[in-house]
Order: sequence, then C-alpha cells, then structure tokens
Amino acid sequence: MISIIGGTGPEGKGLGLRLAMAGEKVFIGSREEPKGQEVAQQIKEIEGVRNITVEGGSNFNAAKMGDIIIISTPYSGHKQTLMDYASLLKDKIIIDVVVPLSFSKGKISTLPILEGSVAEEAQEILKESSVVGAFHNVSAEDLLIPNKKMDCDVIVCSNNQDSKKTVIQLTEKILGLRGIDGGGLHNSKYVEDFTALLININKIYKTHSSIKISGI
Amino acid sequence: MISIIGGTGPEGKGLGLRLAMAGEKVFIGSREEPKGQEVAQQIKEIEGVRNITVEGGSNFNAAKMGDIIIISTPYSGHKQTLMDYASLLKDKIIIDVVVPLSFSKGKISTLPILEGSVAEEAQEILKESSVVGAFHNVSAEDLLIPNKKMDCDVIVCSNNQDSKKTVIQLTEKILGLRGIDGGGLHNSKYVEDFTALLININKIYKTHSSIKISGI
Repeated sequence: MISIIGGTGPEGKGLGLRLAMAGEKVFIGSREEPKGQEVAQQIKEIEGVRNITVEGGSNFNAAKMGDIIIISTPYSGHKQTLMDYASLLKDKIIIDVVVPLSFSKGKISTLPILEGSVAEEAQEILKESSVVGAFHNVSAEDLLIPNKKMDCDVIVCSNNQDSKKTVIQLTEKILGLRGIDGGGLHNSKYVEDFTALLININKIYKTHSSIKISGI
Repeated sequence: MISIIGGTGPEGKGLGLRLAMAGEKVFIGSREEPKGQEVAQQIKEIEGVRNITVEGGSNFNAAKMGDIIIISTPYSGHKQTLMDYASLLKDKIIIDVVVPLSFSKGKISTLPILEGSVAEEAQEILKESSVVGAFHNVSAEDLLIPNKKMDCDVIVCSNNQDSKKTVIQLTEKILGLRGIDGGGLHNSKYVEDFTALLININKIYKTHSSIKISGI
C-alpha cells in the first residue's frame, strides 16, 4: 500500500488519484481522521468509473500501513510530522514531494533549508528510512483531471539507488510521466526550488506548466 | 552588433556561432585581444559554409561596440568584469548567462549569491543597464555543432519588459530554441541553479540535457 501523509491537499490528492488509477492501493492520511476518509471518498468520486482502492484516515494510520510513504504536508508541518512518525517510517521508502514555498511581498519564492533541501531535512530526521525526492514539479491541477494525459518528467533524487529505481518505476505507472534519475539527495534542492519558478510561469501564461528534460 | 564579453569559453563561442548563423553581427570579447580574434576565426571555420560576420578582440572593444552584450565569463570574474566596463554598458541590454558553479568535494553545485542571483548581482553593478538572465540551460556542446537542431526552452528573466521581449525574440532566432518569459530578475536564481542539476544529469546519462517547459 502507498500512503500519503498530508494527502488531503491538491498534490497529495492528485497523486493518490493517479496511483490508484494505476492499480496501487492508496491510503490518504490527514491530521484529522474524518478529513482523510472524506478525501479518499472524493478521489473515488473523481475517478467514478474504475474500481480503485483508496482508503483514508489519520496520518498515524497512513504511516503505519503504507509500504511506500509519500510526504505531502505543507512545509510548515514537515519537520514535526516526520519527527512524530519516525519510528513507524523506519525501513520504508519515503517519497518527499514537499516544496518550501514562501509567498511574501507578492513574490513566490522558496525558503532556504538548513540541510540544503527538504528531502535532506527528511533524511536527517528519518535516519533509518530511505528518502527519495520526487514529484515536485508535477501539476496538481492536471493530476486531478483523471482523463488528462500528463506530459512531464519527474526528477527523482536519492542517496539509495534501489529506492530511487523503485520510485522511478512508480512515476512511470502514471501515464505520461517519465522518471529521470536526478542523482543524490543534494540535487533535490534544485528540483524543489524550480517549483517556485513554474508557479511564476503559471501566473504569466495562465497555464499549468511543468518540465521535461530534453536530450535523454 | 551583439558582443560577448568572455566569449571564448564553450557557451560564449556556441552562442556566438548560432547568433552569427542567424544573421546577427557578432563580436567575441576576451581578456586577451588575440584570443578573442582567434576564437572569432575558429567560429568562422566551424560554420565553414555560410557567410557569417564574426569579429573578435578585447572585452573592452566588445563592451564598446555591442548594442546588446552577452556576459559569459566564469563566475569568478563576473563582478570585476562588470565593474570594469560599467560605463560602456550604460543604456544597453545585458544578457547574463553566467552560472555560479562550484565543483568541490566531487559535487557540482552552485554558490550562494548575496543579491539572490548572478543576474541580480549584475543589475546591482550595472544600475543604468537593462540586465536580462537567459541561455543558462542551453548545452554549449550542442550549440557548437552548427547543423544540430536545438530542442529546448530558454527561460528569460528581467525587470524590464521591453528588454525581456527583445531577448525572447533573439533566442528564437536560433533554430529549435523557444524563449519563455520567466518573470522578474529574482527568478533567474532558479534557472541559474538548475544548471547544476543538468550537469549532474549529463554525468548520469552521458548526454547533453536541457529543459523544456510543458503546458505552454
């Protein structure tokens, strides 16, 4: 089962929908158990046609039940959430999709992270987990339209080659996504930060942009 | 005339070649005048077929003669070079392509920049010029193969809308490049930094990668 901690926001919900459509069992976690259940139900209604398996509940149950865990909290809750569930996340693959966005003075930018990147911050807290940075640049709005074919690359960074390979394969279960090996976790910074630029581009072009790596 | 200050490295040379092929008059500047002349001659020989106009010489003459100036020095020489030629660059469009790369401890990353980005650093020094960040992610190796069709987007950032528009049009004179409005100069940071990731990806995939923005 793939659990999404903080799975009720657009990115978590969109990934939950698409992974369920790809045949994965998905669990949507929330700080409030009923909210997790409600969003799981919404995902089933968005899809509407196929017989997908989506459950929802607390972040605790998400952390406990998932084999692979996606972290999709706002950045403000990132550190505390990981510290709360660290023991439950031990020996699991943790896919961190969090971007440290800052919306101050009318500018969208990213906050500096002491460890270098949000993914490295996660690895620092979850010393016995295998943290992988991925899915940062995928449009949540597009993910949430079940018949919309995605058209972008997912840059996947990790210090663990096996986990990285597993996540690259997972990205490619979603139609139209391609996983790209982005190297070690220290490179996650560039992928996280680029999201701020894409949001700026979205405002200029009134679109949902994402990126593709050409030359591969 | 488009001048390239620090135009003898691969990126400057590649841009010089392609812009000359697009019909622009190009001047290759160097700290050493004979080196600038030599690289201008090399560019003509790479092209070999068409009648292109490429001259070369000192950075001083590059700064003086160009209507549009591309800055393509190593980052280590960026600040000093701009200070040296600031008065000659007044009222001109300055395209800054410099990436603050750092190659330490076996890791390729980017240096933190006090002003936020290299382009902002340039604007801070060249208060009476119009600085535009562009071309950071374009593969120099590909630019240098005259018959290779490029296949990537150039994200163009500036605080001056007219200058940005001019540079977007300039990027599209090079076959296969598309200019993307990347917003204000503060966004140049994300484009500059992403270059470090692309270099890492190049090492992993043994290719010359660049980026495209999908959804536009």
